[in-house]
Amino acid sequence: MNDAVNLADFELRAESLLPKGVWDFIAGGSGDETTLAANRAALDAVALLPRVLAGSGGADTGSQLLKCEASLPVAAAPMAYQRLVHPDGELALAAAARDIGIPYVASVLSSATIEEITEVGAVTWFQLYWLRDRSQVDAMVARAEAAGCQVLMVTVDVPVLGRRLRDVRNAFRLPAEVVAANLVSGGFSTAHSNPLRGESAIAAHTQEIFASALGWADLEWLRERTTLPLVVKGILDPRDAVRAVETGADAVVVSNHGGRQLDGAAASAAALPAIVDAVGSRCEVLLDSGIRSGTDVLRALALGASGVLLGRPLLWGLAVDGAHGAHQVLSLLLSELRDALTLAGCANPAAARTLAVL
Amino acid sequence: MNDAVNLADFELRAESLLPKGVWDFIAGGSGDETTLAANRAALDAVALLPRVLAGSGGADTGSQLLKCEASLPVAAAPMAYQRLVHPDGELALAAAARDIGIPYVASVLSSATIEEITEVGAVTWFQLYWLRDRSQVDAMVARAEAAGCQVLMVTVDVPVLGRRLRDVRNAFRLPAEVVAANLVSGGFSTAHSNPLRGESAIAAHTQEIFASALGWADLEWLRERTTLPLVVKGILDPRDAVRAVETGADAVVVSNHGGRQLDGAAASAAALPAIVDAVGSRCEVLLDSGIRSGTDVLRALALGASGVLLGRPLLWGLAVDGAHGAHQVLSLLLSELRDALTLAGCANPAAARTLAVL
Amino acid sequence: MNDAVNLADFELRAESLLPKGVWDFIAGGSGDETTLAANRAALDAVALLPRVLAGSGGADTGSQLLKCEASLPVAAAPMAYQRLVHPDGELALAAAARDIGIPYVASVLSSATIEEITEVGAVTWFQLYWLRDRSQVDAMVARAEAAGCQVLMVTVDVPVLGRRLRDVRNAFRLPAEVVAANLVSGGFSTAHSNPLRGESAIAAHTQEIFASALGWADLEWLRERTTLPLVVKGILDPRDAVRAVETGADAVVVSNHGGRQLDGAAASAAALPAIVDAVGSRCEVLLDSGIRSGTDVLRALALGASGVLLGRPLLWGLAVDGAHGAHQVLSLLLSELRDALTLAGCANPAAARTLAVL
Amino acid sequence: MNDAVNLADFELRAESLLPKGVWDFIAGGSGDETTLAANRAALDAVALLPRVLAGSGGADTGSQLLKCEASLPVAAAPMAYQRLVHPDGELALAAAARDIGIPYVASVLSSATIEEITEVGAVTWFQLYWLRDRSQVDAMVARAEAAGCQVLMVTVDVPVLGRRLRDVRNAFRLPAEVVAANLVSGGFSTAHSNPLRGESAIAAHTQEIFASALGWADLEWLRERTTLPLVVKGILDPRDAVRAVETGADAVVVSNHGGRQLDGAAASAAALPAIVDAVGSRCEVLLDSGIRSGTDVLRALALGASGVLLGRPLLWGLAVDGAHGAHQVLSLLLSELRDALTLAGCANPAAARTLAVL
Repeated sequence: MNDAVNLADFELRAESLLPKGVWDFIAGGSGDETTLAANRAALDAVALLPRVLAGSGGADTGSQLLKCEASLPVAAAPMAYQRLVHPDGELALAAAARDIGIPYVASVLSSATIEEITEVGAVTWFQLYWLRDRSQVDAMVARAEAAGCQVLMVTVDVPVLGRRLRDVRNAFRLPAEVVAANLVSGGFSTAHSNPLRGESAIAAHTQEIFASALGWADLEWLRERTTLPLVVKGILDPRDAVRAVETGADAVVVSNHGGRQLDGAAASAAALPAIVDAVGSRCEVLLDSGIRSGTDVLRALALGASGVLLGRPLLWGLAVDGAHGAHQVLSLLLSELRDALTLAGCANPAAARTLAVL
Repeated sequence: MNDAVNLADFELRAESLLPKGVWDFIAGGSGDETTLAANRAALDAVALLPRVLAGSGGADTGSQLLKCEASLPVAAAPMAYQRLVHPDGELALAAAARDIGIPYVASVLSSATIEEITEVGAVTWFQLYWLRDRSQVDAMVARAEAAGCQVLMVTVDVPVLGRRLRDVRNAFRLPAEVVAANLVSGGFSTAHSNPLRGESAIAAHTQEIFASALGWADLEWLRERTTLPLVVKGILDPRDAVRAVETGADAVVVSNHGGRQLDGAAASAAALPAIVDAVGSRCEVLLDSGIRSGTDVLRALALGASGVLLGRPLLWGLAVDGAHGAHQVLSLLLSELRDALTLAGCANPAAARTLAVL
Repeated sequence: MNDAVNLADFELRAESLLPKGVWDFIAGGSGDETTLAANRAALDAVALLPRVLAGSGGADTGSQLLKCEASLPVAAAPMAYQRLVHPDGELALAAAARDIGIPYVASVLSSATIEEITEVGAVTWFQLYWLRDRSQVDAMVARAEAAGCQVLMVTVDVPVLGRRLRDVRNAFRLPAEVVAANLVSGGFSTAHSNPLRGESAIAAHTQEIFASALGWADLEWLRERTTLPLVVKGILDPRDAVRAVETGADAVVVSNHGGRQLDGAAASAAALPAIVDAVGSRCEVLLDSGIRSGTDVLRALALGASGVLLGRPLLWGLAVDGAHGAHQVLSLLLSELRDALTLAGCANPAAARTLAVL
Repeated sequence: MNDAVNLADFELRAESLLPKGVWDFIAGGSGDETTLAANRAALDAVALLPRVLAGSGGADTGSQLLKCEASLPVAAAPMAYQRLVHPDGELALAAAARDIGIPYVASVLSSATIEEITEVGAVTWFQLYWLRDRSQVDAMVARAEAAGCQVLMVTVDVPVLGRRLRDVRNAFRLPAEVVAANLVSGGFSTAHSNPLRGESAIAAHTQEIFASALGWADLEWLRERTTLPLVVKGILDPRDAVRAVETGADAVVVSNHGGRQLDGAAASAAALPAIVDAVGSRCEVLLDSGIRSGTDVLRALALGASGVLLGRPLLWGLAVDGAHGAHQVLSLLLSELRDALTLAGCANPAAARTLAVL
């Protein structure tokens, strides 16, 4: 897609290419999509005060995220079932991440196995939903470690799937060729049964295989279980951020799951500053939910984030042109961020944390 | 209505089914409907900070309201003339409340008698507009007590009916078969005469049978008159909440009557926090006006409410499919609230009061 | 107009009846009409906390304004050339004011003479623009006093006419039969010459006959000149309100001239509270600009105003049906205010000043 | 254009006359044009409290900017390539500035040479983008001094060109007859090569000839280099304003380059007050970005600015009718400002700084 000038151009193209059910699955939020909209509004409201005469010239976007080198302070967000939008799925997105030089966060619900994904050669992080018993979790962590994953990210905002009404209206279910590949060998049902009328097959399947009563003791167990850096994803209340750090987390992701879990939850950018205040000196703080441009990344940095996770825009690129499309999205974002940093007088992402916002 | 995914789906269906005059009567607010709109805007503006890793799994929505068990912290709001939207009227709504397990608040202006309603077997509360002299009030309270009502709710925000312009434009009047059934035996005129041009028959009838100069001394008298728990409905100013508690109220309902009385009154959700601060430790504080989802219930709880009254959505369900439709509405709301609590890391409604809001 | 349920109904009818040039002259504001819109937005933003159980029943709207009895705390705002919208012009509006029982403020730029207007029998106040020399002002004050005017109101926000672009685009000029009747005998040009392209004849005429360099010394002179109560109209800055009181003003009108003078000026309702704080204990504070309903009057009272001036809606009524139409507007406003006060638990306008606003 | 009543009328006409690519080049902002829109919103939000009875009559708009006399506190903003919109380009705009009596800021990227421009006879200031080495800068400054420029303005917010997506989509390039005339004799490439797909030729050319790593040491060098008053344009953070003053700047321009550089930057009017607080007593503070009326100039003055730069509206006038059109724009703005000052009770621009804003 040679004529794209921003990430939104990929969005329009992807929507025109994908079946409605798939598009709605990736684009939609939960409930009235209040939180989905709030994510954008909160980012748009961050008015930056750029610095001048910084003497730095073109900025360097290079960063470290959880001690992994990254060509920009962005990681590919964990997203389930990437083969829904393109046959190459996770392998293509991982390749794009590898080629641009950012971490790829592989979802436990990938439609390729973690072993296939790490084979691509990106810096790979493994994202975990908590399965119904610890032995399963243990096995998945072991596989991730063995496959060479460098960071373990546990998602804590899905005790139950959010009420994603588009999926319910569409009676959305995975096509037969898209399965939770990691779980095939674990004795899980991986195929979706036909959903009942008024039910989302994704929600039903989630309910079936995930533990919903996850607690801090589980996190403590996991912290003991692995030496990998541990990231807790899905935190909005500073009290939980503090508890996560006290439990040994190396980073938290301030996130409302892209507006897909609790509708009515605060915008992640609105929740970020208090969390940075609470734990920013003790761990890395990442942000997701709503990032659509280099300016958005700069906004997140100015609010105190160490970096961001990029989600939907990567699926747009993947849908449009596989690994190449996803790489174009990342390449465009890198250019935008480099320009935004340069225009803000920041030599690098770290310098952006000193920017003032109105 | 098997394809409804939220309460708004019932609204659309009900609007398509009901005569315009009836629809406008239940949907409309007073004046320019500023307050009607503000109710929604204030709820939408409540941004929640959910908690994670609470270890509680799926939440329990069970509550107590005025010491009555409730399967969710919701009571069916008192609404006049429910036979306007369905022949089964109050009896159907009471049955839905009974089946889901929440209190049904019977309006003094019901189109079925309080005795018929309590016969249905729901936990029934009785709502009183103050009639023109105390002997009438006395008689109505006696009937409510005798019929087994467990709570007495007195509405204090109708010294005169709000200027509901839709009803005036429609020259709305009750059809002959819908009467104020409780008042038939009380010597009241229950039929509406033909309204004058530019007049609402409902407003004229209200003016005719209600006392408009109700004062605190009347409330004191009522407090002496009955041993039932007493709820004062229609309070927005904390000074009045304090006075109500001092007069012996067991609960107040923060309400602007669904935007149907003083246009320009504050949104009830905007008025709630100051009232919780003023009297929350001394009595229960309920909220109504604008609740449309489980997230809204959670918002009310997070702002400090003990529970909410649900009004118009029950009429939508009733209009669509009688008792079954109303039950579907409540069942959907219960599911939404259970999910919202679970997603917010709250084991039960009481836990929601510790949530932070932005 | 028997089917009007609010003042906006008169607006729609009036717009359909009047020539576009006349409609634009009365409806328009200056510049981009930012202030015109802000007036409404500021009133709409005043969220009231009504009181309950006040024991007062139906409210009494009766008031005193500058020691004149008024059936509601409203005076008919001074507006030039009322014959533009109806042949009966000022005489009809004064009759409507007389019949409902409120003061009528006669503009020096009336299309009937002050003597003709006072003949109607309303409580009449006289509004003065400062003419080019003091002898003319002196003569006009003498005529007003002789004609029985009870209050003198001097408008101080027209050192030059606002840039009313609708009038410029329309090259608006008064029709031949509408003249500044008071000025005929004063040797003024009262007919408008043909405006130049891109000019408003009203603005040119204003420039020709008014003094633009009015200062506090002039106000002092006027204060000495007459024993009538003196009202200074067009104040937005509290420092000017203080100065006006110190100069002997009995009241100030917080006003931006209906958004017709400085575009970009603050909404009058937004400016009101600071002025009430500054001078509310020492003089009456009136409000104009944007009042469209009884709720708006209540809002003004709750913000601390003693009363309001009503402008455009009276012209709507006048345009629709002469004195009868204007009386309908006032009668409707009185009903709305009575209901709003009653619903807010206020026995009378004075009680409204204790209402809290959010 | 005899029927124009405000600057927006010129905008509409200009848009209808210019080729889309040229229109987009002058009208557009960078990125999502968030900052472009914020500039207007911030000005619209400045609610003024005019003063009355100031005794001053019609205001005098005369000012001094950097010790240059100006008939209103406005200078023609530096804008590149003015021949894009009219063959007379800079010479016409300079003539309009001369005739109305305000400074004309000649851009280093003018399509006429600085010598041709100063020949017109306006008070001319010279605006500098920092060229790739100091000898070029030195030479340009020498030429500006020799040509009689009275002020030197250095733009510091273009370390790289903002991502102006309209230009990228249009593959915008200068027509052959429009060149950077000052640079022809300096050995620069002045013609644009054909842009690559997805690239703006303007951006590529900027990158080629400008230094991007400008620092405070460079500004110190420039301060030593010339005795001309020095203005630093493009400051939003008060810390940079302080540094500029400490480096010897005589004025700063609070600007986001008309929303054309960092999208997401704060509105200039929103950033202004903190900068006035920081350096207003030590240097002049000018504002640009979004000024469209006399009220906007008044707003800027009330917020503490000494004056403003006017950009796009001059190009509209130029496009519509060359020097005459630009003069009409300035003449209209002067009238608007005179009226706005008069209506605000300000005898002159300096008095406007005492106005209060809400």
